[in-house]
Amino acid sequence: MYNLMEELEEKRESSISSQDIGKRLGVGSHNIRKDIGFLGETGTSGSGYEIAKLKSNIEKKLGFARQRSACIIGLGSLGSVIMNYQDLPFPCFSIVAGFDSNINKLETIQTTIPVYPTYEIQSVIQRDNIELAVITEPDRNIEKITERLIEGGIKGIINFTPVILSSDLESVYIRNIDIMTEFRYVSALFTLHNQ
Amino acid sequence: MYNLMEELEEKRESSISSQDIGKRLGVGSHNIRKDIGFLGETGTSGSGYEIAKLKSNIEKKLGFARQRSACIIGLGSLGSVIMNYQDLPFPCFSIVAGFDSNINKLETIQTTIPVYPTYEIQSVIQRDNIELAVITEPDRNIEKITERLIEGGIKGIINFTPVILSSDLESVYIRNIDIMTEFRYVSALFTLHNQ
Repeated sequence: MYNLMEELEEKRESSISSQDIGKRLGVGSHNIRKDIGFLGETGTSGSGYEIAKLKSNIEKKLGFARQRSACIIGLGSLGSVIMNYQDLPFPCFSIVAGFDSNINKLETIQTTIPVYPTYEIQSVIQRDNIELAVITEPDRNIEKITERLIEGGIKGIINFTPVILSSDLESVYIRNIDIMTEFRYVSALFTLHNQ
Repeated sequence: MYNLMEELEEKRESSISSQDIGKRLGVGSHNIRKDIGFLGETGTSGSGYEIAKLKSNIEKKLGFARQRSACIIGLGSLGSVIMNYQDLPFPCFSIVAGFDSNINKLETIQTTIPVYPTYEIQSVIQRDNIELAVITEPDRNIEKITERLIEGGIKGIINFTPVILSSDLESVYIRNIDIMTEFRYVSALFTLHNQ
């Protein structure tokens, strides 16, 4: 629903009915009204819900307005790219630390964000209250790194590498999104189509 | 299989049997031998397949060694981050052009890669033989942009925005990977868990 509100705001629309939201999202309008009720003030106007109000209510209720702390694991191409950007690269999270097992990378990387060797993961996460780890590069010791993240009290891991991570702990949310393989897959498709 | 070979090479292993590959990938060793047969020279040694050879055969057969041209659509935070990195941000593809509908962004972005307004998509893609478009930012005119990409002869689109794109053309591969929503989802989870 939040994505839809963003899209409508982009298109300069100002209000929408629960029927129209339901139609766009493929959900019954009764459920839409229930969800909007959960958001607190409904922000209704004569011709439907006010889009800006609905969007800001979602932001408040789900904590989108609050910036949480995240760290980057792996300071190779993708990791450095994210660390070096001045603006916020991801919604809801600020990058406050970077880690790599390779000491050379720590010494040569140019960034204003502090970087640490991976054996310091646990202490830095606790000290800086880091809630999310974004893993951008395969690492030989990825299982050990994941252990350290969990021991440090990490709440979530978004893993962009081809290695599939999992945890038995319900308190840690792990999401595997294999970006590198997506690009290789597309390249392989193009190659095989041209043969 | 390629990911497994990369992982084993990271771990300094030198060879592996078809049984072991099958076990790791959850596939019968007969199918593994068939796939490896398709790769041309099998690269067998006494104690199994040579990992380095297998990896390079996959690279050759699937065209991983060849660099294809890609462009970035949307020069906001994620798009600029990718454009500004010196190394290759993605396997198999070089970024050769950037596009944005906002002329101000085109004028202010600092990058060595040429940038163009989105109405030039079709001609630039044809001229520079661009095969893949990476969409990094929602755009009010995303449907129009997609049309222009397809008219320009694009072969694939990787879409990192929340808008879901699709095409009736079998010749165009479209992959929707909604990164922004992943981060918002994690943030919402953390918020709701703490209530």
